[in-house]
Amino acid sequence: MSSSLLACQLRQLKYLVSANSYLKLSQASYTVSNAESAGPVLITPIPGPKSKQLKSELDQVQNTDAVQFFVDYEKSYGNYIVDVDGNYLLDLYTQIASIPLGYNHPRITKVLTNPSNLSSFVNRPALGVFPPADFVKNINESLLSATPPGMNQVITMGCGACSIEHALKAAFMAFRRKERGGKPPSREELETSLFNKPPGNPNISVLSFKNAFHGRTMGALALTHTKWTHKLDFPSPDWPIASFPSLRYPLEDFEHENSKEEQRCLAEVEDLINHYQKRDNPVACVAIEPIQCEGGDNFASPQFFQGLQDICRKNNIALLIDEVQTGAGTTGKFWVHEYFNLRDPPDLVTFAKKMLTGGFYYRDHLRPKEGYRIFNTWIGDPSKVVMLKEVLKVIKEEQLLQKTTDTGKYMLHKLIAAQNKYPHLLSRARGLGAIAAIDFPDPQTRDKAVAKLRELGIHLGTCGTSTLRIRPTLILEKKHVDIFADRFHQVLKQL
Amino acid sequence: MSSSLLACQLRQLKYLVSANSYLKLSQASYTVSNAESAGPVLITPIPGPKSKQLKSELDQVQNTDAVQFFVDYEKSYGNYIVDVDGNYLLDLYTQIASIPLGYNHPRITKVLTNPSNLSSFVNRPALGVFPPADFVKNINESLLSATPPGMNQVITMGCGACSIEHALKAAFMAFRRKERGGKPPSREELETSLFNKPPGNPNISVLSFKNAFHGRTMGALALTHTKWTHKLDFPSPDWPIASFPSLRYPLEDFEHENSKEEQRCLAEVEDLINHYQKRDNPVACVAIEPIQCEGGDNFASPQFFQGLQDICRKNNIALLIDEVQTGAGTTGKFWVHEYFNLRDPPDLVTFAKKMLTGGFYYRDHLRPKEGYRIFNTWIGDPSKVVMLKEVLKVIKEEQLLQKTTDTGKYMLHKLIAAQNKYPHLLSRARGLGAIAAIDFPDPQTRDKAVAKLRELGIHLGTCGTSTLRIRPTLILEKKHVDIFADRFHQVLKQL
Repeated sequence: MSSSLLACQLRQLKYLVSANSYLKLSQASYTVSNAESAGPVLITPIPGPKSKQLKSELDQVQNTDAVQFFVDYEKSYGNYIVDVDGNYLLDLYTQIASIPLGYNHPRITKVLTNPSNLSSFVNRPALGVFPPADFVKNINESLLSATPPGMNQVITMGCGACSIEHALKAAFMAFRRKERGGKPPSREELETSLFNKPPGNPNISVLSFKNAFHGRTMGALALTHTKWTHKLDFPSPDWPIASFPSLRYPLEDFEHENSKEEQRCLAEVEDLINHYQKRDNPVACVAIEPIQCEGGDNFASPQFFQGLQDICRKNNIALLIDEVQTGAGTTGKFWVHEYFNLRDPPDLVTFAKKMLTGGFYYRDHLRPKEGYRIFNTWIGDPSKVVMLKEVLKVIKEEQLLQKTTDTGKYMLHKLIAAQNKYPHLLSRARGLGAIAAIDFPDPQTRDKAVAKLRELGIHLGTCGTSTLRIRPTLILEKKHVDIFADRFHQVLKQL
Repeated sequence: MSSSLLACQLRQLKYLVSANSYLKLSQASYTVSNAESAGPVLITPIPGPKSKQLKSELDQVQNTDAVQFFVDYEKSYGNYIVDVDGNYLLDLYTQIASIPLGYNHPRITKVLTNPSNLSSFVNRPALGVFPPADFVKNINESLLSATPPGMNQVITMGCGACSIEHALKAAFMAFRRKERGGKPPSREELETSLFNKPPGNPNISVLSFKNAFHGRTMGALALTHTKWTHKLDFPSPDWPIASFPSLRYPLEDFEHENSKEEQRCLAEVEDLINHYQKRDNPVACVAIEPIQCEGGDNFASPQFFQGLQDICRKNNIALLIDEVQTGAGTTGKFWVHEYFNLRDPPDLVTFAKKMLTGGFYYRDHLRPKEGYRIFNTWIGDPSKVVMLKEVLKVIKEEQLLQKTTDTGKYMLHKLIAAQNKYPHLLSRARGLGAIAAIDFPDPQTRDKAVAKLRELGIHLGTCGTSTLRIRPTLILEKKHVDIFADRFHQVLKQL
């Protein structure tokens, strides 16, 4: 084991040297996957002694119950995350789905070592008032090159939750503008708005879905319904919550049954909209994930989303599709809602994680009419946009959407094969592109499998009640899936 | 003018060359102030043609009403911000008070060009689960070296608003723990918490102050009461809002009168706490800025804050002091509340802006008991902590707290002199360290003065109704104040 570790470290060293000497990394022979570890290398239990020591130190100043292990980000490379104890894990969780091209991708490293990018990292502007000279160019070559079809407005934000918060504000403003029918706000509205009182701060609501996750700040949290750890003890507005379809998999085998369930959920949405309208707390926005992630990798059909959009159109409600976890090409299309063949584009699409910056796209009619309405000091960080520009270039040059589709199919095929072999342990294998999941009979068995997989060098996440959550980079290859599948079978055999 | 521009650009060039060649910048003869522009250089109106062009381009994809001009951050240096049209402005606003050491400080540039820091910038972790190897060391040498006296817990966040949001959550949890008297939450609480319903999501509130500003996400916005642009159309919880003392300046001349006003406000706080208790919406937290910034640079005395803390203690309410704009040494002490001689440390202190990272300090009794309670994917950005470490080193090495105190006194002296000369135009000169402000008779005159000052190369902010807001770097020197004072008198003469 120590010889493969040595080989691995030599490979790391080779990379570091080449990165520092500005080797032409785009040469055809170079790929990250050739330079990364050949496989997992385990030399201690995880967390190892060094992780435990650091955790106990950090615990002096904050609750560390969520810390799994400490990471050597200098050594981590490609699809392999390396902990401080020297263990190399194949990373299929990628910082909760937020690393697009793996660790220390040479093209991103080059962005950082390029002197002409230096000032973007050193000087963080108040972006809404004093934007950098290259900001327009940079968003043109990044965010605007990935705009969801039919949308044309975009704003950056610091994180996913802030993206949701401010997207909701855009929806609230548009809703009230429509209610005013073109008139300016009244003096009473302006004055009461400073004191948390209607009519300036009206009773209007956002409809969300059971098992949804949209973030942990007060507005975003009001849309989140996954776990008590996120919610307990925090005051929350009384906003409507509809059922998200609970479908049977594989979807194509249960079309009729699933369609009935989706119709039931859509009827519930309509009932809630009417009910909250009557309670003088009308719905201004419907917020939904295109695939519920944290809530258990729950899918719904294009027809469901089309129906939802129809309801929104009929009731003049903005439709917000939250692609914080699902966007950035991870499913083979850049945005999952592109699979839905919606009649119109969504009104709002939020992003963060693999996009490196938070933010949201929106349609013209949601554009604020005044300055400072969607605003804060930083409004994101232009240095992240500089990095995103390079990420998107690599995605395009290396055709990663297609590769992700192929690798994802291969992964799903392996999951289905495992499920067929161990039907008492596995069910509901599902996925789209690199997003993949499978269920265990109960949380205990799932957690045991995750722990055992880690002992074999596979790093994975969980979601829902008893679901295994697979969220790899966009540069995952079939050889990585084979390594996963091999270890997965070893674990299933023992369970 | 073009010769001084040339000199200026040569100076810039000199710096760039020296920065790139890793010149030993700590040598005694080197100071930023020697390398920066010798004074403002104006070659076009502001915004100039290039700014206007970029603004019209950006306006295609977002509302740009708040954009003042586009900035050449590569050329900006020290206390001088350089716009894309080549104008050099003495910056006394510093990206809404968020640039601690001026632009392109060589020590921060060195952090970026140091290869051993590279991986911190390239690999953004999910900090709460997979922290970097050097994170404990880095927060020890940064955030924990600046801990407010008596506090010992800290967590990072992405921005100021998120810091407030999560600090409130810490207060809510502690409040409910106390209410439960050590018992675990009931099954009913856990279950209702997923659906925005009490008792899991209880009716508890936060008391804030008129003219307060704490941010623009839903929880932070419920504490903000400055301008309708921040508030109109957004639903908001009905939380209590007390008067912030409206004092006469100079404070020492109106001690008796001011003390009466502060007693009135404290009585209002107690009344509101009792009133909301009776309405079954008890106050769990009082949030306050040590100096109201956005609201108009409003000061209150140490006695007021001591009295407020006494009320909080008596009622088992957490006291949150929001130092997002006031912290990081800008007033001569690292945190403004250190001036207040509080009996106990505050329960929560939030920060962002000049700290480069958001976050908050808190006391032991506010520490969450479970993991994932104060959490999100990124929880800030460790690369900002790496930069902050260097900022704090420079503050210490160059004794910037003392220098800021001296320069700030000099600035206040100049403001008072101007006020004595133009009593019909100026009033209420006030300040603490580098935070300084003065009032005009009305917003129109104030805005005219700011516009004219910009034409003379002085870049300033505004706050409140008719206040000029001065927020320089920590490396401002008396020579800069002299340049400001000279231009200020030129403008006042014309008004």
